[in-house]
Amino acid sequence: MRVVTFGELMLKLSAPGYTRLFQTPELDVLFCGSEANVAVSLAQFGMDSAFVTKLPDNDVGKAALRSLRSFGVDCSRIPFGEGRMGVYYAEKGASQRGSKVIYDRAGSAIALAAPGDFDWEAIFDGADWFHWSGITPALSDSAAKITLEGCRTAKRMGLTVSCDLNYRKKLWLPDKAQTVMSELVSYADVCVANEEDADKCLGIKAENTDVELARLDADAYRQVAKAIHKRFGCSKVAVTLRESYSASRNGWSGLLYDAATDEVLTSRKYQLDIVDRVGGGDSFSAGLIYGLCSGMPDQEALEFAVAASCLKHSIEGDFNLVGVDEVQALMCGSGNGRVQR
Amino acid sequence: MRVVTFGELMLKLSAPGYTRLFQTPELDVLFCGSEANVAVSLAQFGMDSAFVTKLPDNDVGKAALRSLRSFGVDCSRIPFGEGRMGVYYAEKGASQRGSKVIYDRAGSAIALAAPGDFDWEAIFDGADWFHWSGITPALSDSAAKITLEGCRTAKRMGLTVSCDLNYRKKLWLPDKAQTVMSELVSYADVCVANEEDADKCLGIKAENTDVELARLDADAYRQVAKAIHKRFGCSKVAVTLRESYSASRNGWSGLLYDAATDEVLTSRKYQLDIVDRVGGGDSFSAGLIYGLCSGMPDQEALEFAVAASCLKHSIEGDFNLVGVDEVQALMCGSGNGRVQR
Amino acid sequence: MRVVTFGELMLKLSAPGYTRLFQTPELDVLFCGSEANVAVSLAQFGMDSAFVTKLPDNDVGKAALRSLRSFGVDCSRIPFGEGRMGVYYAEKGASQRGSKVIYDRAGSAIALAAPGDFDWEAIFDGADWFHWSGITPALSDSAAKITLEGCRTAKRMGLTVSCDLNYRKKLWLPDKAQTVMSELVSYADVCVANEEDADKCLGIKAENTDVELARLDADAYRQVAKAIHKRFGCSKVAVTLRESYSASRNGWSGLLYDAATDEVLTSRKYQLDIVDRVGGGDSFSAGLIYGLCSGMPDQEALEFAVAASCLKHSIEGDFNLVGVDEVQALMCGSGNGRVQR
Amino acid sequence: MRVVTFGELMLKLSAPGYTRLFQTPELDVLFCGSEANVAVSLAQFGMDSAFVTKLPDNDVGKAALRSLRSFGVDCSRIPFGEGRMGVYYAEKGASQRGSKVIYDRAGSAIALAAPGDFDWEAIFDGADWFHWSGITPALSDSAAKITLEGCRTAKRMGLTVSCDLNYRKKLWLPDKAQTVMSELVSYADVCVANEEDADKCLGIKAENTDVELARLDADAYRQVAKAIHKRFGCSKVAVTLRESYSASRNGWSGLLYDAATDEVLTSRKYQLDIVDRVGGGDSFSAGLIYGLCSGMPDQEALEFAVAASCLKHSIEGDFNLVGVDEVQALMCGSGNGRVQR
Amino acid sequence: MRVVTFGELMLKLSAPGYTRLFQTPELDVLFCGSEANVAVSLAQFGMDSAFVTKLPDNDVGKAALRSLRSFGVDCSRIPFGEGRMGVYYAEKGASQRGSKVIYDRAGSAIALAAPGDFDWEAIFDGADWFHWSGITPALSDSAAKITLEGCRTAKRMGLTVSCDLNYRKKLWLPDKAQTVMSELVSYADVCVANEEDADKCLGIKAENTDVELARLDADAYRQVAKAIHKRFGCSKVAVTLRESYSASRNGWSGLLYDAATDEVLTSRKYQLDIVDRVGGGDSFSAGLIYGLCSGMPDQEALEFAVAASCLKHSIEGDFNLVGVDEVQALMCGSGNGRVQR
Amino acid sequence: MRVVTFGELMLKLSAPGYTRLFQTPELDVLFCGSEANVAVSLAQFGMDSAFVTKLPDNDVGKAALRSLRSFGVDCSRIPFGEGRMGVYYAEKGASQRGSKVIYDRAGSAIALAAPGDFDWEAIFDGADWFHWSGITPALSDSAAKITLEGCRTAKRMGLTVSCDLNYRKKLWLPDKAQTVMSELVSYADVCVANEEDADKCLGIKAENTDVELARLDADAYRQVAKAIHKRFGCSKVAVTLRESYSASRNGWSGLLYDAATDEVLTSRKYQLDIVDRVGGGDSFSAGLIYGLCSGMPDQEALEFAVAASCLKHSIEGDFNLVGVDEVQALMCGSGNGRVQR
Repeated sequence: MRVVTFGELMLKLSAPGYTRLFQTPELDVLFCGSEANVAVSLAQFGMDSAFVTKLPDNDVGKAALRSLRSFGVDCSRIPFGEGRMGVYYAEKGASQRGSKVIYDRAGSAIALAAPGDFDWEAIFDGADWFHWSGITPALSDSAAKITLEGCRTAKRMGLTVSCDLNYRKKLWLPDKAQTVMSELVSYADVCVANEEDADKCLGIKAENTDVELARLDADAYRQVAKAIHKRFGCSKVAVTLRESYSASRNGWSGLLYDAATDEVLTSRKYQLDIVDRVGGGDSFSAGLIYGLCSGMPDQEALEFAVAASCLKHSIEGDFNLVGVDEVQALMCGSGNGRVQR
Repeated sequence: MRVVTFGELMLKLSAPGYTRLFQTPELDVLFCGSEANVAVSLAQFGMDSAFVTKLPDNDVGKAALRSLRSFGVDCSRIPFGEGRMGVYYAEKGASQRGSKVIYDRAGSAIALAAPGDFDWEAIFDGADWFHWSGITPALSDSAAKITLEGCRTAKRMGLTVSCDLNYRKKLWLPDKAQTVMSELVSYADVCVANEEDADKCLGIKAENTDVELARLDADAYRQVAKAIHKRFGCSKVAVTLRESYSASRNGWSGLLYDAATDEVLTSRKYQLDIVDRVGGGDSFSAGLIYGLCSGMPDQEALEFAVAASCLKHSIEGDFNLVGVDEVQALMCGSGNGRVQR
Repeated sequence: MRVVTFGELMLKLSAPGYTRLFQTPELDVLFCGSEANVAVSLAQFGMDSAFVTKLPDNDVGKAALRSLRSFGVDCSRIPFGEGRMGVYYAEKGASQRGSKVIYDRAGSAIALAAPGDFDWEAIFDGADWFHWSGITPALSDSAAKITLEGCRTAKRMGLTVSCDLNYRKKLWLPDKAQTVMSELVSYADVCVANEEDADKCLGIKAENTDVELARLDADAYRQVAKAIHKRFGCSKVAVTLRESYSASRNGWSGLLYDAATDEVLTSRKYQLDIVDRVGGGDSFSAGLIYGLCSGMPDQEALEFAVAASCLKHSIEGDFNLVGVDEVQALMCGSGNGRVQR
Repeated sequence: MRVVTFGELMLKLSAPGYTRLFQTPELDVLFCGSEANVAVSLAQFGMDSAFVTKLPDNDVGKAALRSLRSFGVDCSRIPFGEGRMGVYYAEKGASQRGSKVIYDRAGSAIALAAPGDFDWEAIFDGADWFHWSGITPALSDSAAKITLEGCRTAKRMGLTVSCDLNYRKKLWLPDKAQTVMSELVSYADVCVANEEDADKCLGIKAENTDVELARLDADAYRQVAKAIHKRFGCSKVAVTLRESYSASRNGWSGLLYDAATDEVLTSRKYQLDIVDRVGGGDSFSAGLIYGLCSGMPDQEALEFAVAASCLKHSIEGDFNLVGVDEVQALMCGSGNGRVQR
Repeated sequence: MRVVTFGELMLKLSAPGYTRLFQTPELDVLFCGSEANVAVSLAQFGMDSAFVTKLPDNDVGKAALRSLRSFGVDCSRIPFGEGRMGVYYAEKGASQRGSKVIYDRAGSAIALAAPGDFDWEAIFDGADWFHWSGITPALSDSAAKITLEGCRTAKRMGLTVSCDLNYRKKLWLPDKAQTVMSELVSYADVCVANEEDADKCLGIKAENTDVELARLDADAYRQVAKAIHKRFGCSKVAVTLRESYSASRNGWSGLLYDAATDEVLTSRKYQLDIVDRVGGGDSFSAGLIYGLCSGMPDQEALEFAVAASCLKHSIEGDFNLVGVDEVQALMCGSGNGRVQR
Repeated sequence: MRVVTFGELMLKLSAPGYTRLFQTPELDVLFCGSEANVAVSLAQFGMDSAFVTKLPDNDVGKAALRSLRSFGVDCSRIPFGEGRMGVYYAEKGASQRGSKVIYDRAGSAIALAAPGDFDWEAIFDGADWFHWSGITPALSDSAAKITLEGCRTAKRMGLTVSCDLNYRKKLWLPDKAQTVMSELVSYADVCVANEEDADKCLGIKAENTDVELARLDADAYRQVAKAIHKRFGCSKVAVTLRESYSASRNGWSGLLYDAATDEVLTSRKYQLDIVDRVGGGDSFSAGLIYGLCSGMPDQEALEFAVAASCLKHSIEGDFNLVGVDEVQALMCGSGNGRVQR
């Protein structure tokens, strides 16, 4: 199975350890982004995964390409051209201090890209699945248009389409987001949301729930999942449920609604000691795509997605550098973290 | 409002991460000290803060100055002269192993300083608040004398004086401390103590309390606060309450006694996953000074101080590199540590 | 008291922090190994400790020697010769992801060593105690033979012999292990096992216990200890009890059976926030040897061993770099991890 | 004497050592820029130096401010506002491979700044000297206009104005540069050029000279200096002469033309083993300003400038972190680089 | 044009900077090897390059693959299987101290590989050029056999074959080398030798030359080149000429003999300040292959090869991370190392 | 042969690379000192070497011991006690900027040591050679007295005594130095001087020589050597000759005067590209001691000393981490720095 993901690849510049930004004169470097993270995770699972974006035609863009390629992601469909590499500065939170991100992404090559830069028919040649997130259409009107073209072509060519809502408040306001996303999500077979963004992206709110207080009412999210199906027709809707006790500790689980059975399945919940929580949602999407592509039953696919993303939280960086065997060992085991020697 | 703090600035040489000292051939460097930490924190809150000490006239002293200045602290009143830069070697604890500190501070420029080195009238010109800690008079008899001159001048010029008891057993014994501190504390309007040092510095003991066992009886500390007021006349007495479950986890809260109302207010308690606990008390003092200077009611000032110092524990190094907005977000929020993007 | 330990010294190449192997282009270096770790810990306790192995005659072997020597371990009886330095690649686990180890130790100098390389009579001259672990005989048939010679000579010369079972599934299968170990363990006065390896090395299983689920039945381990005594004649049998909630958090305690009194003593249990758990068992053995050598009563020796190894978990690297004073402070204190300044 | 410099402050992200960009996953960080470098160097010489720019109102801009402030530069006149922090990626050359720079500076706060952001009268209050470089007007038409206003105000208020031509081909073409610079340079009392940029910025070419071949004809540069005086009226014109044998080794000297005497003075020539050549020209300008401000005769001022910038090449980073005593020791000594202990 | 190279990929563990091995507790990591270096360099030149080896089926082997893939080398033909990853420990020399290498490569997957592991017809499908070096057949008899099969298949399928003699005295003795290489070299169209290895690999000695004394007689090497052609039929023979004044400075040039014209061309000579000289010869081979593949005349191809490898010496690590534009800029320019901004 | 050296062991805190002190927030750590450096070098040559000093009784002193011990130096005669660890801050020079050292050594354990701390008879038991440098008696009057006792005991017990003059202007003035050294040097059989310190320590000046200008007149140093012999009776006098062209490049050679033959031998001269020049003189002393102890003829011993110290300049840190084989390879070879593989 071949999966294509589409979005922005950014240069992440992180303060080392638990220092604040520029507290020391070094920054750690990673080229990443929601959809690229999904592609990398799928490649670690042994899948044929391809990533599509537009990159600036300089040494920074080439290094970005080199980085993704090293993880086995097919980058042969990435055009190079005008624009810069979007940058984001990141510092890692701990205890009561949340992680913080400063975006410097205006004018990026992908935000400036034109529909003509992407030949979706060629891109989807031989592919089975198309994945994008709500960040991509938020980048620019043009990027939204390209995403729409991608969705349309994908559907026409028979690919499964999945979408992670991924609301980013620094990119757009809920009004704009809901206008754009309503059309786009209607192309998605599989929709992934977290406990916050169905409200912002789609205007669908979980009742009796206070994300701030880590009080998540599973019932409320069942309703959210069903409402997404009803309004946009997605045949499967998954929701990640993060109980954020602090920046160092979270509860982590998920649920999956299947329109065919009208059932909402819930997963095992993991108690996380967090190494790096960025990329948690992306690794869930990748796990879910892998599970569904592999023909796992829904419950197993959900457990695979939750276990995969549980492991992500224990690794530095945005990529979920774990293999299928490791995810399955966690699914089948106790998660006791014993040494493997 | 302009705040002046006075004390020793040291070169802290820390073992990286959770290694023990000299386990690897590198040391992390920071120029810091209790009163400097307060000045830095106040500057991050946007206040006009100045630090006074004496520094050795060499590249080490100049680097120390450069470091403080970068955080926006006014260092224009620091004399340079004879003596060395005091050094302390530090290793960070974890779990059941407490952090450890080795002092090499004898003969420092500030310990050797003479009263004539400081023109307190000029130093306090335009200032509103004077802060020092019990470490300063413990450095040498001369340093105690200079502190006393500072206190007297401050009072005469109408500044508010605050003092953090900060007992250091490697600098003096309780007997000597109590003799010196009794006079000095009588100049303080605001006195800050932690759960240990009222006993050592002032001979005032909390009953029914075992710091070792992290069993802190709030009632007992109320009595301590009142007793400090009664004996030394401080109009406000604050106590930080650290429940030390292990070097990695603490409970953190505080209380504030106001003589005018004869009330003891207690704060919200935070459960900390500790990144670096050094500077915790200093960041509390800074938060309290900021709160009181800004005209916050006592309860709000106390909550600000506790929230500020809660955040300090999540950052590497002795300085509390957080802004007022971040402290207020924590005060008003749940402390769930969600990503800010 | 002079203690001699015998085993393999390896080059450990670790991924920094919580990265996965080769995620960054650097590896941290340590020369270590179960029996060397014991020797290092004993030297930190101020004992006369010697380590015996065979090292390759090149710059890697010399660096290995240099490393051990720095910790005060007597390395004067180590022959140099043919073979390579065994390597192991390590990554540190966190949360639900366990630490992982990849061995590349075939063809090491010690695995290729011949009995004639070691003059046990000379090695044991002036020594009181001989310690080895189940890893050593697993390296090669020749290494097993050398261990046997060591045991025999030690007994003949009146040394106390201790053995840590230390089963390693990548080195041998249970069948082979049990054949070889049954003979060797019969020479041991003191046998140390963890919650897993009595089963694999000796075929003695704890009932009603699921290590995977961190459900350890103390009663079951009492039976294990007694059974080891009964079958192999060891006069003392100690068992470490690790309750592995996750790779970041463990419960840690131990028990000690004494054949003379037929009593099984159990220790205090520590709740660990783990910095590095590798070397935990070795530091327990070292603590126990120190306690017994120092003439501590059994309960005290056990508490010393458990407290010593508790502290190991808070330090980077395989070595337990703590002194007797630190262990005793923990034994007598609350383990609250307060700063020592 | 108080010197004000004006220009862009950038975030420099450098590949460590002699790696190429992104060869390792870390970047070294420095906030710097031609005019800021001059201000920092002057502050190290003990002068009252101030830097003016516009910074983005986020953590990156604040860190930039913190960095400059640490070196004793007065940053109190820097407005914060819209726009991003300009970034440049740098790799250090060696042997036949030249250093390489990739700019990502479009949309920076200073490029977007409007004339109204700077109150030049207030900025120049108490100042004696105004320095800017050809990079500043190249940033945007608005930046050119602001520079012009600065120059006019400076002249009106009686400041000395100096300008470093500093041609940057990625910012503008020679035609545009010459149009803009012709007007601006006419305000400069002191003009600094290197061996390349008089041609590009002013259209004044050195004859018989091939910079590529490190063949610099001093006579030709005398003509250049005189021509600059004749066309723009600058009373002093200095030219740095870099003989670039390779990226690792350069010859370094300078000349200074004084219109009053119509003499061209030449300096001693240093043979450099280069640690970091970026900031070489800026350190020359700073040295010259210091020399002229201090009332040194022209020859001495020139030698000071050349010796100061000679030392810059031996230090990592763009800043010339040397004091007046060190420059004078080199001027008066042999440059033999013996240990100072 | 598609080039396939074949050889061993090793894990290089280097002491940082100019430290000796294990002087600090870190090692820098690189996956490299003579033929892989050639493939990487060709990929940087924009060519379609593929590398063939056998890798161990574990995380180390996978990381090795990831690394090569990042540079754009096609690794799809690499089998995984039994055996370990060969390791080499390296320290960088300076001044009179030469770089030093300790091999630990016995038992590597490629040394243990069997002819059946490689389907040369499939590997060469679509390829134009096959390159190997004298290290490959030296690894094991089996590796020699596989190389021979590769050469035969390549010739049969019409590929150009090139060989870098690359004598390694720790792998085989001259006698054995000459026996094996005589047959293999007879398949090579293009033979690359350095100033030492024609003698050791082929028994062809340069007269009047003392490599030790950096006294290289160009005439002697002309004779060597012609002799290689005469004995083995290679239509082109290139020799790199390293004048080793010290570990920090070398003269670098090359010559190329063409049998068709019976001419020996010599190149420009570069004076190198060395950053890292490992991979110098490999980068020459890559440059020559690129030049010849691109249809450059012999002199230009030679100059391209020498300029490319000149640049290699200025970059950390074994790979020549430069593009065609950079090589051509050096060929056409003066090599003065000026900043490119 | 067993050699004992006596002096101060300091904690060297170095700025990384070519940064200036505190330019980055890290310091590299080394425990070293002139006489310790000699002991370490001798141990690398395979000799039985012991170092004597006094260390502070804390974790810093213990780490110092650990460090020396790792290099195989016998530290069993080092007393621990009152006083601190002397510190020196160091930055490495390059090009025209010399290395710089800031001492913070007052109050060190060795400076405070009393004669009773050292039982010279026990220390010299089994020893053949005693080495000290002019730094030791300069530390304090007490240290001078202890050195004198050491010299007297050594002579009485028949050891050979060697002394490196090692003048340090920050420790004493020439007058004091000459008074103290005159007596001490009269006990020395072998005296080592550099091109500067015979003048300062002994009042014996080389004529026609300007060290500043790297103009060293070999004849003048012959006279110096002879004069030392005449005045103090040393039977051998060696002088190192450093031609300091810059901090990056030196010429390096030496001469040796033998009273028996009244001949002055001169060595080969090496042109150094310097990695770290600190410890250059110490490594010469160690080389000379090794050569003379090994019974080499004078010329060979001198060449060994010069070649050994030549290599030192190519290694980071103060220790000469080279073996006899490496020194001999350089002595017998060309110093061309070719790779050893």
